[in-house]
Amino acid sequence: MKVLLIGANGTIGSAVRKELEENHEIISAGRTGADVTVDITSPESIQAMFEKVGKVDAVINASGATYFGSLEEMTPENNEISIMSKLKGQVNLVLIGHSYVNDNGSFTLTTGVIMDDPILTGASAAMASGAVKAFVQSAAIEMPRGIRINNVSPNVLIESMEKYGPYFPGFDPVPASRVALAYRKSVEGGQTGQTYRIY
Amino acid sequence: MKVLLIGANGTIGSAVRKELEENHEIISAGRTGADVTVDITSPESIQAMFEKVGKVDAVINASGATYFGSLEEMTPENNEISIMSKLKGQVNLVLIGHSYVNDNGSFTLTTGVIMDDPILTGASAAMASGAVKAFVQSAAIEMPRGIRINNVSPNVLIESMEKYGPYFPGFDPVPASRVALAYRKSVEGGQTGQTYRIY
Repeated sequence: MKVLLIGANGTIGSAVRKELEENHEIISAGRTGADVTVDITSPESIQAMFEKVGKVDAVINASGATYFGSLEEMTPENNEISIMSKLKGQVNLVLIGHSYVNDNGSFTLTTGVIMDDPILTGASAAMASGAVKAFVQSAAIEMPRGIRINNVSPNVLIESMEKYGPYFPGFDPVPASRVALAYRKSVEGGQTGQTYRIY
Repeated sequence: MKVLLIGANGTIGSAVRKELEENHEIISAGRTGADVTVDITSPESIQAMFEKVGKVDAVINASGATYFGSLEEMTPENNEISIMSKLKGQVNLVLIGHSYVNDNGSFTLTTGVIMDDPILTGASAAMASGAVKAFVQSAAIEMPRGIRINNVSPNVLIESMEKYGPYFPGFDPVPASRVALAYRKSVEGGQTGQTYRIY
């Protein structure tokens, strides 16, 4: 299959590429160092990416910024970071992109454990993931031409523990390679509307 | 208690007022015909409302617009209706309003059944509710001064079946009076971070 992988250079994106590249043609997209440049906070940039890439069989998004900060520091303004990127960025990939996906193709978006298991400073990110999870479940019943849509909700990654570990006390981190399997299940399997929780 | 009820003139808001007015002082807020005028899509308007009302013991929001339309008609632009109002409007009530809520007070927001049980044309509204539900669960662990936060997720209302019934085939509608009890549980009880599903 022809797979458009957005956020291909991140920790998850790299693991997904490794999991899929043997059996699929991967087109990478991202802000820098990818086959195609895209900024998912801009609908125009998303449109331009799909115009450039053309028809694909699967779209995987492993990118998306979120705001972390205590609830008392959180404002309508800094919460926009999560809304513009992880929330609207991912939803808009689907709204703009579905006409570029071949029949029976798929979208796989990325949420995260803290929508189910809150951490301190995580309310903005949890909000964005909760939105995407509910959107995926609902959009699945209306996707045209047999196109499927799922989301993968990873726990904190073993590879990220040095950087993010202190924010996830008592969480049992998972390897990115195990998270990548869920993206493969979404792309090659037949399920739709699912949240793959890799906790 | 002093209760600020936003969306007091809607079907749910009216039922909540009826449930609470015997034992509480209700200050109504809304776009028209309320004690205080507010447009929850505007952070400035939210700020002005709290400045005018001053300290309260409970904030209940029963307002919030959402976009309904098929996934193929849904665009980044019309999806903003749900993001601006039901999603950011409710989150911003908390971010701006918590400093106006007395110690051990509460916020009660409103989500909806379709975040759990999707309907055709409901992806944008489901997205907004899913965001608010996850935000509430996460914000609850960080609210200052013992302030609690919950959300009520109503099924389609018996009172709304003439207008909305065709969008909810096979759903078992509930009376607004039963939904109103959940707001009372949130305001007068001790729980936090909860989603009260009135299905």
